[in-house]
Amino acid sequence: MIKRLGAEFIGTFWLVLGGCGSAVLAANFGGDGNPLGIGFVGVSLAFGLTVLTGAYALGHISGGHFNPAVSFGLWAGGRFPARDLLPYIIAQVLGGLFAGFILWHIASGTATFAVDPNAAGAFASNGYGSHSPGGYSIAAAFLCEIVMTAMFLVVILGATHPRAPAGFGPLAIGLALTLIHLISIPVTNTSVNPARSTGVAVFAGAAAISQLWLFWVAPIAGGLLGGVIYRWLGDDAQR
Amino acid sequence: MIKRLGAEFIGTFWLVLGGCGSAVLAANFGGDGNPLGIGFVGVSLAFGLTVLTGAYALGHISGGHFNPAVSFGLWAGGRFPARDLLPYIIAQVLGGLFAGFILWHIASGTATFAVDPNAAGAFASNGYGSHSPGGYSIAAAFLCEIVMTAMFLVVILGATHPRAPAGFGPLAIGLALTLIHLISIPVTNTSVNPARSTGVAVFAGAAAISQLWLFWVAPIAGGLLGGVIYRWLGDDAQR
Amino acid sequence: MIKRLGAEFIGTFWLVLGGCGSAVLAANFGGDGNPLGIGFVGVSLAFGLTVLTGAYALGHISGGHFNPAVSFGLWAGGRFPARDLLPYIIAQVLGGLFAGFILWHIASGTATFAVDPNAAGAFASNGYGSHSPGGYSIAAAFLCEIVMTAMFLVVILGATHPRAPAGFGPLAIGLALTLIHLISIPVTNTSVNPARSTGVAVFAGAAAISQLWLFWVAPIAGGLLGGVIYRWLGDDAQR
Amino acid sequence: MIKRLGAEFIGTFWLVLGGCGSAVLAANFGGDGNPLGIGFVGVSLAFGLTVLTGAYALGHISGGHFNPAVSFGLWAGGRFPARDLLPYIIAQVLGGLFAGFILWHIASGTATFAVDPNAAGAFASNGYGSHSPGGYSIAAAFLCEIVMTAMFLVVILGATHPRAPAGFGPLAIGLALTLIHLISIPVTNTSVNPARSTGVAVFAGAAAISQLWLFWVAPIAGGLLGGVIYRWLGDDAQR
Repeated sequence: MIKRLGAEFIGTFWLVLGGCGSAVLAANFGGDGNPLGIGFVGVSLAFGLTVLTGAYALGHISGGHFNPAVSFGLWAGGRFPARDLLPYIIAQVLGGLFAGFILWHIASGTATFAVDPNAAGAFASNGYGSHSPGGYSIAAAFLCEIVMTAMFLVVILGATHPRAPAGFGPLAIGLALTLIHLISIPVTNTSVNPARSTGVAVFAGAAAISQLWLFWVAPIAGGLLGGVIYRWLGDDAQR
Repeated sequence: MIKRLGAEFIGTFWLVLGGCGSAVLAANFGGDGNPLGIGFVGVSLAFGLTVLTGAYALGHISGGHFNPAVSFGLWAGGRFPARDLLPYIIAQVLGGLFAGFILWHIASGTATFAVDPNAAGAFASNGYGSHSPGGYSIAAAFLCEIVMTAMFLVVILGATHPRAPAGFGPLAIGLALTLIHLISIPVTNTSVNPARSTGVAVFAGAAAISQLWLFWVAPIAGGLLGGVIYRWLGDDAQR
Repeated sequence: MIKRLGAEFIGTFWLVLGGCGSAVLAANFGGDGNPLGIGFVGVSLAFGLTVLTGAYALGHISGGHFNPAVSFGLWAGGRFPARDLLPYIIAQVLGGLFAGFILWHIASGTATFAVDPNAAGAFASNGYGSHSPGGYSIAAAFLCEIVMTAMFLVVILGATHPRAPAGFGPLAIGLALTLIHLISIPVTNTSVNPARSTGVAVFAGAAAISQLWLFWVAPIAGGLLGGVIYRWLGDDAQR
Repeated sequence: MIKRLGAEFIGTFWLVLGGCGSAVLAANFGGDGNPLGIGFVGVSLAFGLTVLTGAYALGHISGGHFNPAVSFGLWAGGRFPARDLLPYIIAQVLGGLFAGFILWHIASGTATFAVDPNAAGAFASNGYGSHSPGGYSIAAAFLCEIVMTAMFLVVILGATHPRAPAGFGPLAIGLALTLIHLISIPVTNTSVNPARSTGVAVFAGAAAISQLWLFWVAPIAGGLLGGVIYRWLGDDAQR
């Protein structure tokens, strides 16, 4: 069990360091008009590739959740025992916090680094209302996070189903996370993962922390919804 | 059958929500000069990844068409029974419409959201003439949609052929849709899928609805053409 | 044999239509400052995805060369009989020309379409000197095309070797073409494929045609070099 | 053994030619405001695709390290014998230098080519302080290179573990390198590979050479760390 938790810690560390790191360090490199910055396309790719690479490397140890909403959704889908939820989630949150800590130290190495806690998406944090990158309301943010997480779980449960092509699960799941970011960064800076939100919120300041509840409630609700949907759909596939 | 139709509903929902959602929410984030928007590259990736992820997750339930032109083309290619065409297409259109509905609610959550029904590509709708993103004529739009859908079916039928490498079908098919968008978004905003066009047209206004016929006729004609072409080609492979 | 040639015709058609089509229609959409155009990244992806999708769909019929330099290189690598070279190359060139023809008709559908035969990269043509996108000399162009095609053949021969992971060949080969374009579009607009160069040169005007010889000589020389290199390397792998 | 070293030479040549070549030739094509340049996203893709394609093509010959830090990390992870370290590293460095030499000759073919040895990232060289693209300190650069290389080795060792899905190793490893570049180009221009740093430093001038030591020490330290971490984690997977 300790090595499974170690894999979840490292995988979530990689997810937050890579996804949020690309956003903080490279998304807007050089500012407006500079063609070198990776933009939302690059950040979306980075988030997805953390999961794709982490799941191929560590999935055979821990299952490769790296996300409390995924652990809940796999439980709802009948693939994960309830007794493992709490230790997995603790390992994930600690991995995310350690990533935030390391990222802060790397980012602080340049003289121009500064976190404005009132800016939307500060230090890659998630937010709604005035803290949404595109100024989206709390209702839109909530709806978006629920729908995206639910579909994420449908892809996870479907692509790892015994009747799905073997070995392609991490590819499909990682690229699903890329897709989700391509859609929803403007709405909430994209969470679908409470550990990812928590890992950077504590470094992003009071606003991010005050909105953090939504990025626990909505992704977990979405994860449970996706688990229930696929459980209904996938039954048919097994017959 | 109900679960197969459920899978087609959810897969087409994901295709329209993800592809059109990325276009509406993120393609032009911040406007000209802002390097963060995902552009046509990001939208092309998003459309392809909806199919890649949906087909890995749901393909073993319903075959993963998510597109009336694909269902017609698979029928022409001898892989799908005529009696299932109508229920599949109904499920696909309903999934597309539900995606348009959800996307409208998310997009409406920001104060700057507005749909100008006379703008080309309004709410990710497809169009020709003055409603084509690049101002392409109806003849160019028709030719483009037929050729792209025909080649889409050639890839679908070929990559799922018993002699093609097993398991790679969803990868090849999803990335074929990405490729098709990289080429043809400027021409028609890219349909190759009547359910995708319908799902957003009803929210995009009168112009999109008045041009919707082309995005049923041309993709289905192209799908049938691709099915016939591959049926001829693939015979040889089976001998 | 006729169906193998049909597969080469269609595959090369797809390569030129998709790769050159994305360049002509979408690379610079809206002009400078418009973030929607797909740029060289999008064009590189498009070229690679034509081969990735074409090889998964048609590779089991014809081998999926879609390129005279590949056919020559596979011959040099001991994987393709000399007697099939000429018919394969004819089918490839005809497929490329048909793609140029269809692309011309689609592109002509917008009022702003015009081909300036003196512009570098006109209608996605290849060139050197004043017809190189970045103004590269004939010597740099020749060196670049030889090295890129040689490495392309090393990847093709290696990734389809019996000891390489089964089924991943089209993925590796398609993405190798994406990589080659990411490097070398500025130098020659990237050929590594005489059929691709020929297919658009006849529509691009006198300058492209006058420089076409280089995009037959250098890719074929590079293909032969790559075949010889891998034949030496891969021998060891078989023991 | 000579063919294994030949494969490492060619693979590292491809890595440096493709990764650094895309950076030198295409990253900033046309300058600010020109949408065609491939930016850091394109360079990140290029680096990753050199390893993805090289590992599918040559991995069955030499293991596909192409990087001294990877060879050290595989040794620390118990997968590579110490006696092969020196010959592998010599072949890798020679391959990197040959790539720098060829790239210099291609790049010199345009009149506007010039290398300013005092510019950050000159000729795709790695650097810290005033030679870091984003002006990051030596401490941030060191931390970043160690963490990135350590995680690179975790992915390499995990994705090639007997319990990981067979055949997907090169995909996961190549895309891990893409991810690492998406995060860290602004910090050090991304090395994680002493052969890559050396291959271009000798052409980039005195500043790059004077800072080269860090890009040997930090990646090798990170590689060893990653090897040790995975050795602990992966033990569990084998039981």
